[in-house]
Amino acid sequence: MTSFQMSAKEDMVEKFLDAAARGDLTQVSSLLSLVPSLINQTGYSGWTALMLAARNGHLHVAEKLVSLGCDKSSVNSSSQTALDIAKFWGHRHIAGLLSQSEGSCRRILPGGDLSLQENYFGRETLDRLSGRRTDEVWLETKQKDLATVYLLFSNLSPMVSTPQEDSEGGDIKLCRFRYEAVKDLLQKPSTVLIFLGMEKMKSSSSSSSQTEEPPVWFAISTDEDAAELLRRCRENTCLFPKTPNRDLLKLSEEEAGVVAQARSVLAWHSRYSFCSTCGSSTHLEEAGYKRSCLNPECRSQRGVHNTCYPRVDPVVIMLVIHPDGNQCLLGRKKVFPAGMFSCLAGFVEPGEAIEEAVRREVEEESGVKVGPVQYVSCQPWPMPSNLMIGCLAVAVTTDIKVDEKEIEEARWFPRQQVIDSLFRGASPAFFVPPRQTIAHQLIKHWVGMNSNL
Amino acid sequence: MTSFQMSAKEDMVEKFLDAAARGDLTQVSSLLSLVPSLINQTGYSGWTALMLAARNGHLHVAEKLVSLGCDKSSVNSSSQTALDIAKFWGHRHIAGLLSQSEGSCRRILPGGDLSLQENYFGRETLDRLSGRRTDEVWLETKQKDLATVYLLFSNLSPMVSTPQEDSEGGDIKLCRFRYEAVKDLLQKPSTVLIFLGMEKMKSSSSSSSQTEEPPVWFAISTDEDAAELLRRCRENTCLFPKTPNRDLLKLSEEEAGVVAQARSVLAWHSRYSFCSTCGSSTHLEEAGYKRSCLNPECRSQRGVHNTCYPRVDPVVIMLVIHPDGNQCLLGRKKVFPAGMFSCLAGFVEPGEAIEEAVRREVEEESGVKVGPVQYVSCQPWPMPSNLMIGCLAVAVTTDIKVDEKEIEEARWFPRQQVIDSLFRGASPAFFVPPRQTIAHQLIKHWVGMNSNL
Repeated sequence: MTSFQMSAKEDMVEKFLDAAARGDLTQVSSLLSLVPSLINQTGYSGWTALMLAARNGHLHVAEKLVSLGCDKSSVNSSSQTALDIAKFWGHRHIAGLLSQSEGSCRRILPGGDLSLQENYFGRETLDRLSGRRTDEVWLETKQKDLATVYLLFSNLSPMVSTPQEDSEGGDIKLCRFRYEAVKDLLQKPSTVLIFLGMEKMKSSSSSSSQTEEPPVWFAISTDEDAAELLRRCRENTCLFPKTPNRDLLKLSEEEAGVVAQARSVLAWHSRYSFCSTCGSSTHLEEAGYKRSCLNPECRSQRGVHNTCYPRVDPVVIMLVIHPDGNQCLLGRKKVFPAGMFSCLAGFVEPGEAIEEAVRREVEEESGVKVGPVQYVSCQPWPMPSNLMIGCLAVAVTTDIKVDEKEIEEARWFPRQQVIDSLFRGASPAFFVPPRQTIAHQLIKHWVGMNSNL
Repeated sequence: MTSFQMSAKEDMVEKFLDAAARGDLTQVSSLLSLVPSLINQTGYSGWTALMLAARNGHLHVAEKLVSLGCDKSSVNSSSQTALDIAKFWGHRHIAGLLSQSEGSCRRILPGGDLSLQENYFGRETLDRLSGRRTDEVWLETKQKDLATVYLLFSNLSPMVSTPQEDSEGGDIKLCRFRYEAVKDLLQKPSTVLIFLGMEKMKSSSSSSSQTEEPPVWFAISTDEDAAELLRRCRENTCLFPKTPNRDLLKLSEEEAGVVAQARSVLAWHSRYSFCSTCGSSTHLEEAGYKRSCLNPECRSQRGVHNTCYPRVDPVVIMLVIHPDGNQCLLGRKKVFPAGMFSCLAGFVEPGEAIEEAVRREVEEESGVKVGPVQYVSCQPWPMPSNLMIGCLAVAVTTDIKVDEKEIEEARWFPRQQVIDSLFRGASPAFFVPPRQTIAHQLIKHWVGMNSNL
């Protein structure tokens, strides 16, 4: 090829990729009919047209590319497939398309791939880079890096700003600080500093050079006066939410995932600053992921002990289905808003399997006996550090007898009533928890399972 | 009917049920051809012939009864179906038969019912009766009950006896004590007493009256000299196993489940006797399931805090499958016996979903990137209190780069090599962990998935 031809080809590839990234189906189609070999061409960092369409949520372009037989398995320079990208950016319709056509995965996992289901608090936008937690030199350099992002926590609440006209995504946004704005706090002995990780992937439209490392994130917890901390922001739309159970559900999916990690680890530090084995003080290690006893005689110094590592509490949460398949069991606690019913739930006990915990909790709380149990999906719930393990369960008895210490009322609800509540707006007499909860997602999963919703 | 006819019918029902319980297929068949209505007759406590066959593992009798259309859904006076009974007693072939024919369950859970998979340490023979943990009067009465069973622990090891000629099941058996034999230990302030629960179901052949409550079980942990404790047994075949990771795998399935619960809770008491929030001493409450801080000013006294409850650490353990579907990734740690390879595994971190933990751990340990993840089954692992969450995962990259801090070697193993190792006996060059581990069961699940093994 002459240099003119090369340049013309490069131009065309660029035009084609740009059209895919913008979702311009007409241009994508006409360029492909002109030059079919464009379909698998790559641009910056090895991104294909399919990846760009997947990144930006352009389903029709993705469908067109797949229907024309594009290579779905190729990976970019970060080893991500288009499916990875669609999942990462939360474009489930595209992820569904790409995994449907992933015949090999279906063959390998005959039970079906549920791992596409992603719940609020579950998205990982940061690579935790746990190997770096003991690399003090690297961490110190990163702390001072101009691109590094700091989140500020007070009483386990992150500083957030309330919505602006042009804001995208969630109703509230995390306040992000640079090193200069927080370096005084880092000097204070009472400050807890947690390394959260490195951004997994930059936006495909990034203009920065390929060699630059993505920014890393830290969380800072400080006992400084909250009003003082808020003065660090120029806008007066900032605050520390007071009711995490409700307010932290207003973040974007991306930020919710970061908060889940940061808040759980910080809650552990706030509750576990003394050695549970001997009562001595402990000190923070490994960038916030370990606390070691300061007493050299302590048993916890010999070998590896879970006392030194963050605690995660597994909880089972289950939608119990009536033997007739057309009703589900929901209960309500006294503290729920009037009219709200949810799935039953409870902590997994020591020495107990998930399925057994489901059977025990359902019988304890409602008197209903459960047979088959099926895992559906899970959700990290940072209040303070639960792992909600979501299951469907089929009842083998139907009489309800509630344990009034646990729940106020439990009832079988017909499928149609649940569907109405989910899709036609909640009635004050009966509604379920919001979409950010795994309870909501389990209920939605069930009503969608045997119908065409 | 005359009284003679009634008695003749009762005799025949009894004969029929007895034949089913003994597994006498010839007699079951001939009685049924004589009096077909016998098929759903019930005897003691509402047990049917199918339940008795399921209880005692008589597959051929169960098949005959099912093929003749017996009622599979009827329940005994403890609300158990024949399927419940088969699962409870570990007769998986019968449980498989009964759940295969349970069309309704399959319809309700279209993904298939994996909850039949039961792993070692996962069987629950005791009803934990958590509501009784705060009932001190009831607990005290039960402590002195002649039928109550006590297990003795020293340094987190249960006292066991080594095999006798006529022993059934495991290679070692728990030593069971009555109140009289341990009442001196119960008086000691250093003794930790845990309520384990009530036996779920008595053997169907029991001759005791229906009104009698089944025995309850307690675990005692004491700091008395182990040699002294062993003198409480008449036989000199008793001991406290020294290597729990290995020795506790020699119990029967029933006893392993009890030990999983007892050891996890006792390990928590041994490591968490001080308040992690303020460093003060704590005291045991709720029959061993809570520890409260003795300092009235402590924050942990206000509201509910996880610091007061036993810790359970969720761990992901996964078999990673090659994109070609015919190889799996296994790794080995330096401490493994030479030639042993196993699934990769790691703790779930705060704010992390199960599927994300699988992807992170596999990439950290082996450098392999993982796409779809599927939950298979789980296993309580009381060393000291892990919940092993077993998954299959499909790799999207295949290059291996091990993290040498974590594992020594990782390799793709062809399916046939794994099958040979599982079913034709281990070779010293390559073998997998024993059947009691969930790693073994995941591997077996995979090799059986796409073949007729």
